[in-house]
Amino acid sequence: MTEDFQFTLQATDGMARRGQIDTPRGEIRTPAFMPVGTAGTVKALYPEQVRETGADILLGNTYHLMLRPGAERVARLGGLHDFMDWQRPILTDSGGFQVMSLSKLRKLNEDGVTFKSHIDGSAHTLTPERSIEIQKLLDSDIIMQLDECVALPAEYAELERAMELSIRWAERSKKAFDDAKGRALFGIVQGGDNSELRARSARGLIDIGFDGYSVGGLAVGEPQEVMFKVLEDITPHLPVEKPRYLMGVGKPDDLLGAVGRGIDMFDCVHPTRAGRHGHAYTRFGVINLKNARHKDDPRPLDETSPNPTARRFSRAYLHHLVRCEEILAAMILSQINLSYYQELMAGMRSAIEDTRFDDHCAAIREGWARGDLPTIE
Amino acid sequence: MTEDFQFTLQATDGMARRGQIDTPRGEIRTPAFMPVGTAGTVKALYPEQVRETGADILLGNTYHLMLRPGAERVARLGGLHDFMDWQRPILTDSGGFQVMSLSKLRKLNEDGVTFKSHIDGSAHTLTPERSIEIQKLLDSDIIMQLDECVALPAEYAELERAMELSIRWAERSKKAFDDAKGRALFGIVQGGDNSELRARSARGLIDIGFDGYSVGGLAVGEPQEVMFKVLEDITPHLPVEKPRYLMGVGKPDDLLGAVGRGIDMFDCVHPTRAGRHGHAYTRFGVINLKNARHKDDPRPLDETSPNPTARRFSRAYLHHLVRCEEILAAMILSQINLSYYQELMAGMRSAIEDTRFDDHCAAIREGWARGDLPTIE
Ligand SMILES: [Zn+2]
Ligand SMILES: [Zn+2]
Repeated sequence: MTEDFQFTLQATDGMARRGQIDTPRGEIRTPAFMPVGTAGTVKALYPEQVRETGADILLGNTYHLMLRPGAERVARLGGLHDFMDWQRPILTDSGGFQVMSLSKLRKLNEDGVTFKSHIDGSAHTLTPERSIEIQKLLDSDIIMQLDECVALPAEYAELERAMELSIRWAERSKKAFDDAKGRALFGIVQGGDNSELRARSARGLIDIGFDGYSVGGLAVGEPQEVMFKVLEDITPHLPVEKPRYLMGVGKPDDLLGAVGRGIDMFDCVHPTRAGRHGHAYTRFGVINLKNARHKDDPRPLDETSPNPTARRFSRAYLHHLVRCEEILAAMILSQINLSYYQELMAGMRSAIEDTRFDDHCAAIREGWARGDLPTIE
Repeated sequence: MTEDFQFTLQATDGMARRGQIDTPRGEIRTPAFMPVGTAGTVKALYPEQVRETGADILLGNTYHLMLRPGAERVARLGGLHDFMDWQRPILTDSGGFQVMSLSKLRKLNEDGVTFKSHIDGSAHTLTPERSIEIQKLLDSDIIMQLDECVALPAEYAELERAMELSIRWAERSKKAFDDAKGRALFGIVQGGDNSELRARSARGLIDIGFDGYSVGGLAVGEPQEVMFKVLEDITPHLPVEKPRYLMGVGKPDDLLGAVGRGIDMFDCVHPTRAGRHGHAYTRFGVINLKNARHKDDPRPLDETSPNPTARRFSRAYLHHLVRCEEILAAMILSQINLSYYQELMAGMRSAIEDTRFDDHCAAIREGWARGDLPTIE
């Protein structure tokens, strides 16, 4: 434990980095995957189950929490950690991304963004200052600046405008953050798929100075190779001694590729969402348990999984639960997917320590490519 | 443990009975409440969580399981206990009640009942013999005869016809059961709200001879006092040395009243269903967590509850989860309700042992009548 936020780079293998973030609420082993606790819960799991999958840190969504139950209310109730009974670190986003993707009637100007709630149509304003204030009210450990994220493909002028606005908002965020003791503030690199804009964004943020650097504006519709190209271009411009967070990414294969390009932190709703839709992530790739091929299969999902839940129930039972739309299906498959994601991160961390990252990733990808167990007769 | 099904009456207090059923899969402390695992899962709980609430036995629904995943399939997969990973006793109903309440185009005659599935319209037949066969395929520990249950109010002639048919089906069930080693077969007393018919039903079943006696045809629309009157009339006609099971009942107050009238076993979907709808059962009565009065309440549901989950989260957090329709709300509240039901049963068992059953029930009812904690400012 430490009183301050602190990042230690422990090992590298090519561009891949093995590190640790220390915070007053505990350490975060990097590369790290952060499960998403959208509205104060990682869907379908108790907090201790999330921890047992190996998660060191959760992500909370400012947009959702500011609307329900409200940031001031969470603060009165003792902060988000007590509210949801998760005592380890929490990273919060700025709310900006979901204002753009979920809210109605939004208007963005230099000051910030006004919008109407997708839940009840109520009017709200988010400025860089208010976003920081909300994240402090939530008692977030790692705070994101408000930025403007542009969907790809987009025109150069539009990408430049949003990137420059994001830098001005970064400055205001830094001022509002005011070196809050024990918390960290991350700036967000924008600039879309344009290398020059990305580099200018990074320089602008570094001049202001942040505890970590997020890469925003990716996984917004572009092909994986575009995302990887941006990462290859941008990570060399980022300070070695600060953590790098790729926001909203991704599928397992995205994680391997992004770690190999120097990223330290990830979040994504995908593993829990896929679990609620009957999909299981395994070393065999994605398994759709709705498929009738599983209905008589007495085998567990993966009898060699380190996760007891993946060894416990038959595929036939999981198929049955998914078909019946039982809540237990969502509970089990969300747990299995988060656990597989954490297993993936732990594997990459070990591989970097042993400088066998590329071989490790190749072996993982080979497993996925081989696909699922053959159907039994 | 025992190789055979065996009931021991350990204490009585008035009509209330304290006992134990021994089965090859473990003991059942009576009075017992059996959570309902409709389709091979007690909704929103892992099996070990169900056990931790204090449940000794689950109920499985023949109707649901014969349609999905199918009894032969469950048998091939090793039986219902392995399928859902619940290794303690399971009682199954005959399927008849849900054929009547859920299926379409049903036709009943002397032989049995034909119907179409409410899920996919497929045609099925249930006879007394097929019901026993299905329950054996599921590997049920306590098997129910197929009976015909009539909704109340109903004409005498209709009640008599159904009761007499149920006795003929009881005989066929006994024959089909064929003294299956380690399993028990229960007959079902019918006769609606008519004392004479109920007594005739009981005599007919006792002549055939069963391991236990269920009271069916109650909680089908009649007022609580009608149900209690039927129980008062019927339990004196039932053998002292066999367990008595009141099917499909009930709310907490029904349980107190029925135990006080000599009932040993219960099942009901109510605690889990209520949990999914945001209702919590506590010593203060039912608490509707959707209610805005909880939105700023930092207090747990019941800080003196023996159930850690009922002490863990604030009412404000539970309110938030219910409002957001989060799966975790269903998980927590189903657990809390099942746990409260088991606490109620354990309390009654102790009270009977100490011959203070009436005082105990009065104190419980007083708590409910006092109602919830006053709202805080
Ligand atoms: Zn994502
Ligand atoms: Zn019921």
